[in-house]
Amino acid sequence: PSKLKDVVTKRVKNVLMFGKDDPRRIIHSMKVGVALTLVSLLYYVRPLYLSFGVSGMWAILTVVVVSEFTVGGTLSKGLNRGFATLTAGALGVGAVHLARFFGHQGEPIILGILVFSLGAAATFSRFFPKIKQRYDYGALIFVLTFSMVAISGYRTDEILVMAYQRLSTILIGGTVCILVSIFVCPVWAGEDLHKMVANNINKLANSLEGFEGEYFPLPEKISNETNSCVREYKSILTSKGIEDTLANLARWEPGHGRFRLRHPWKKYLKIAGLVRQCAFHFEILNGYVLSNYKAPEEFQNKIQEPIATMSREAGEALKAIAKSIKTMSKDTARVNAHIDNSKTAVGNLRIALKSSYPETDKDLLEIIPGVTMASILIEVVNCVEKISEA
Amino acid sequence: PSKLKDVVTKRVKNVLMFGKDDPRRIIHSMKVGVALTLVSLLYYVRPLYLSFGVSGMWAILTVVVVSEFTVGGTLSKGLNRGFATLTAGALGVGAVHLARFFGHQGEPIILGILVFSLGAAATFSRFFPKIKQRYDYGALIFVLTFSMVAISGYRTDEILVMAYQRLSTILIGGTVCILVSIFVCPVWAGEDLHKMVANNINKLANSLEGFEGEYFPLPEKISNETNSCVREYKSILTSKGIEDTLANLARWEPGHGRFRLRHPWKKYLKIAGLVRQCAFHFEILNGYVLSNYKAPEEFQNKIQEPIATMSREAGEALKAIAKSIKTMSKDTARVNAHIDNSKTAVGNLRIALKSSYPETDKDLLEIIPGVTMASILIEVVNCVEKISEA
Repeated sequence: PSKLKDVVTKRVKNVLMFGKDDPRRIIHSMKVGVALTLVSLLYYVRPLYLSFGVSGMWAILTVVVVSEFTVGGTLSKGLNRGFATLTAGALGVGAVHLARFFGHQGEPIILGILVFSLGAAATFSRFFPKIKQRYDYGALIFVLTFSMVAISGYRTDEILVMAYQRLSTILIGGTVCILVSIFVCPVWAGEDLHKMVANNINKLANSLEGFEGEYFPLPEKISNETNSCVREYKSILTSKGIEDTLANLARWEPGHGRFRLRHPWKKYLKIAGLVRQCAFHFEILNGYVLSNYKAPEEFQNKIQEPIATMSREAGEALKAIAKSIKTMSKDTARVNAHIDNSKTAVGNLRIALKSSYPETDKDLLEIIPGVTMASILIEVVNCVEKISEA
Repeated sequence: PSKLKDVVTKRVKNVLMFGKDDPRRIIHSMKVGVALTLVSLLYYVRPLYLSFGVSGMWAILTVVVVSEFTVGGTLSKGLNRGFATLTAGALGVGAVHLARFFGHQGEPIILGILVFSLGAAATFSRFFPKIKQRYDYGALIFVLTFSMVAISGYRTDEILVMAYQRLSTILIGGTVCILVSIFVCPVWAGEDLHKMVANNINKLANSLEGFEGEYFPLPEKISNETNSCVREYKSILTSKGIEDTLANLARWEPGHGRFRLRHPWKKYLKIAGLVRQCAFHFEILNGYVLSNYKAPEEFQNKIQEPIATMSREAGEALKAIAKSIKTMSKDTARVNAHIDNSKTAVGNLRIALKSSYPETDKDLLEIIPGVTMASILIEVVNCVEKISEA
């Protein structure tokens, strides 16, 4: 029993830790709870229940499904749902009236054909990348509402009343969700994207600055310790999916804080792509650093100085860029100064390499990391140029 | 008007082309239509309608929402939905009975608290990566069903009948979907993953073999032509998301075709990771190839021969691997032969580099592509070793 208790307390601690990691998660859960409670008033309050009846459940359904973590997600789902329900509902009512012309026998056949063809068409449309990206959920709801209205219209005569009640409760549910998500501790997808890009550049800078200590370990401290910092770039390699999603959601968001309505979200993707390009270079470089097979000391000593300057200055430049993104202010002068410094270092490295020719006659392979660094720096310079637009 | 007609015909052609690209998309749309039509029989056929009533709409809702492109997707959603509805429904009925003890005044308060806390808890649980990966949809449906049952239970006395009807129609809808998706031209996520990994290796091989022609263009044909083939590896760089999703869905699928129930899907992710690593190297290499700043011809001639052999043999090895994955047969002998050949070529390249020292005294930077190739080959060897387990 005491063992069981241990396990339970450990679990609970884990959960609490997870919540502390990003308190917005707890807040979001609370927000969903609040929206649910608000909407359930449609049932508890007698006058509301009398006017909406069991349709209140559509409001509950909408709240549960539309509540997303970010404002952009909620808005896109809510608007998609609203418009899709509206058009599909109208079409459905039309279909039912059309089918009535064909008599009692023909009605189900006509309805079946219509449901089949519209359902298949809308499902097919969801495969198109553009529609999938922005209106996937809308298409789903369209199929849902249309088939529901068309099919159940066969058995009821009060189809208009029903449609009206459902639509209004769905609108209520959607509105509650959107209001709660915007006004109670909002989580903006755009802001997340903004921070993520800046952080990724910072990670790159850390890895770059950690690289020197990794490749030229000081005698007293043997690596394995700075590792965590050098490995920071790893998460950038595969962050494309998250960035795309965030940028996609950010487009739905209204202006907020420092971001205007038509903020150039696509530029973030461009910058993120360049940052990822840099991270690819790091990945390769990392392979060389890990292979314990190093150049002779004499040669190392020669290239250490310029490489150290190169990575330090380029790291500084990246940090300056990250900062200027975070504060949304241009500080090109400082960035350029650091880049110029690192370029000079590249030049020095070239000279150092040339002068060391006669000595190195068997380990050409060892010089590569240094030169790969040079190419990284060129990438970085490219990156900076693109960023100066943001 | 004729201009409008042009635009329309062009659009239609585009859509048809898109369908032809992957005819499974059209089939899938049809399947959704069929499932919808089957389920709508619940309304059209009188005896069925009498026993289920308006609850038939839950079957429609389930069909629309559960129908996914792959069998794994449909199964995971269907099972998630089934179990979540079952447990949440039971809990909801329990909650309503519990709340009744507190009299007419207390009932909505107790229900509100329960809905708030369970809704928030389930929403929070969706943030955990493990739950998100496999049971995200289940948690959503849990919140949905629980709050719906608990809240509407306040206004109706026939809650058990209602719950029974809904559950049975949801089960009918889910079963129809799963049966249709498995037995009518199924699309297996596992098979897609399998093919994707094999194709990616093939793409790598093509890029590798195209590389030679790119870096040492024959006098008569100036590049820009082989480009498409060399660039094939690009799509691998960011394919991680799709692979993860497919592997995730594949785990839900029963044994089919050549795959047993507990096929080691994780191994595919491992192989895919190695393939991506290779693609990173290509990305860097590509940068060097594009920079029009090339080594002196004399030097190029010296390294051309071993580099050509290297890339050809490594490409052959990759193709043999892709083939052995596709046919699920081991052909290690052939793969190893090619790898040995390319290793010998690496040795030759090393010798060629050594012998060319005195001549090259200013363009050390130009030798890098060759040496990067060597490191790619080492990666490839690693990759092969891992693959021999599959």
